[in-house]
Amino acid sequence: MNALSLDTVVLSKDRGALEILDQTLLPNEIRVLRLTETEEIWEAIRSLRVRGAPAIGVCAGYAMALAASKIETDSREEFLAAFREKKAYLASSRPTAVNLFWALDRMERVAADHPELSLSELRERLFREADAIREEDIAISRSIGRLGLGLLRRGDGILTHCNAGTLATAKYGTATAPIYAALEEGRDDLRVYCDETRPLLQGARLTAFEMCSAGADTTLLCDNAASSLMKSGKIDIVFVGCDRVARNGDTANKIGTSAVAILAKHYGIPFYVCAPSSTIDMSLPDGDSIPIEQRPGEEVTEMWYTRRMAPEGVQVYNPAFDVTPCGLITGIITERGICRAPFESAFRALGIK
Amino acid sequence: MNALSLDTVVLSKDRGALEILDQTLLPNEIRVLRLTETEEIWEAIRSLRVRGAPAIGVCAGYAMALAASKIETDSREEFLAAFREKKAYLASSRPTAVNLFWALDRMERVAADHPELSLSELRERLFREADAIREEDIAISRSIGRLGLGLLRRGDGILTHCNAGTLATAKYGTATAPIYAALEEGRDDLRVYCDETRPLLQGARLTAFEMCSAGADTTLLCDNAASSLMKSGKIDIVFVGCDRVARNGDTANKIGTSAVAILAKHYGIPFYVCAPSSTIDMSLPDGDSIPIEQRPGEEVTEMWYTRRMAPEGVQVYNPAFDVTPCGLITGIITERGICRAPFESAFRALGIK
Repeated sequence: MNALSLDTVVLSKDRGALEILDQTLLPNEIRVLRLTETEEIWEAIRSLRVRGAPAIGVCAGYAMALAASKIETDSREEFLAAFREKKAYLASSRPTAVNLFWALDRMERVAADHPELSLSELRERLFREADAIREEDIAISRSIGRLGLGLLRRGDGILTHCNAGTLATAKYGTATAPIYAALEEGRDDLRVYCDETRPLLQGARLTAFEMCSAGADTTLLCDNAASSLMKSGKIDIVFVGCDRVARNGDTANKIGTSAVAILAKHYGIPFYVCAPSSTIDMSLPDGDSIPIEQRPGEEVTEMWYTRRMAPEGVQVYNPAFDVTPCGLITGIITERGICRAPFESAFRALGIK
Repeated sequence: MNALSLDTVVLSKDRGALEILDQTLLPNEIRVLRLTETEEIWEAIRSLRVRGAPAIGVCAGYAMALAASKIETDSREEFLAAFREKKAYLASSRPTAVNLFWALDRMERVAADHPELSLSELRERLFREADAIREEDIAISRSIGRLGLGLLRRGDGILTHCNAGTLATAKYGTATAPIYAALEEGRDDLRVYCDETRPLLQGARLTAFEMCSAGADTTLLCDNAASSLMKSGKIDIVFVGCDRVARNGDTANKIGTSAVAILAKHYGIPFYVCAPSSTIDMSLPDGDSIPIEQRPGEEVTEMWYTRRMAPEGVQVYNPAFDVTPCGLITGIITERGICRAPFESAFRALGIK
């Protein structure tokens, strides 16, 4: 079984539910959840059953289309009010990934900007918009994959952090897209190294699972072994995903990404952020303005384990993300091209607004 | 209960066994193992039931004294041959910490260099030598604690990695010794931050347990959150222990230590190694000559968890230690004084040979 064959987020055939692969159960169990209520989808995002900025965007698009299909009213005013209530509720699920807000805004614009459509036509149009978000996401990953592949030499060792793989997107991933592109060309010379990514082990459970199942040469390491591995000469390039990029290039991604960037700089290894242009937030001047989600301490002290891993009463510092300053980033690979510092003008040159 | 009241490694009152606190069960269970056979002690070191370079040294001293007490012969030649066989066997338990070899050599010198003693007097003398190693270790920790305390200002935040605490020594620890010294003076202004230290979580299970039980303001973090924490301004100084220091100052310590040092340099935070002079190996020119133990991949993929944390078949990179280059180290705190670069001459100035 190749993880590429798994659908991260799709609409059910009867269009009555969202089908989400429950990523909290991987790699031990492949279970698809059928979610019909906005509250269920909110919980799935909150609990990381679906995660990864692009996948959250796709999920939010379908969640709004589904919610709209269930708003029982003939009044456009009532419809829009109920739609916006659902939107605000979904926006409260997680604070950092900008794709959530980007997709919700996109769906709201469709809902608000088509007075020529009847409400039943509008409900139909919203499903098509969500489909479009998903299809565009796949095309974006393909494009990032081709651009990233152009940076890889034969036999390169690639380090990645957390999961910016097919499971974090509609398909192919962002940081893994170059590797999938290489595998599709029949190349078996690349070596993939996955940081396990505490506390929730997305690197071990998701990226290592994806890469092994796709047939890549895959090695897992604890986050704190990256320095030793880089020193050994086995890492030639780093690819990471991102949750939000400020217009100067400062990049919020899974906690620990900034450490990987500092280590890469220390060892002279290029460090690339793979970023759909929808994750670039031109309204923010720099990373200091990106809100960072703080997660429960129990993720560190007890989750996953049969017994406590830390004493009762200890305080826990458990941010979900950190910000990698633009000065540590070799390039940001968007679907439109690879941006290099100074990033703001590079973003604008690609038409990112 | 204060962890300081727990004995890491002591001889039983009847001098028939070694009593070791089983550190693999902490913080959930406090269980003391009574070990009589060299094979049991080898297993306890190998399985990290007793760990930490100074504690391993103390353990090795008593293990040799116990073994000597059981060698049933009246021939000095046979006694020494059997003694050296036990010594070689214990030396195979773990490769990186130099204190193991240092203590074994010290015990062998006592066994070989006292022809004036009868064998029964020699067996007695070996117990006293092991006691001396333990007592000296406590004095060394006290001294490192006083020197380290001199580096701390009021309200400082201290980051430490892995466990170089009372559990890693006979008492007080090395990296934690300055904090115990502050607590003994009634100071409650310091803040201690513990890297959890994957894969075996010695920071979460042992250091956080020690520091909480001793009444320190203690916060736990995943290893990959150290960069974000340093950036937040909460860390003023880093104290780590060490398993072996080469004569140029390159320091082998728990995997991830070199990453903490690189991050500390990036953020301009002083980084100190706390090193009993017995861990300084003047026979090695630099860190490249320090053997690094590779541990089983299962520690990363399945240990501690009820279910696998990574897919079957994935390769694992799991070194137990890494080497922090001397250029990243602000100072090495030995019991004789604080050494600064160039370290070799600083070591020699303190009489370390």
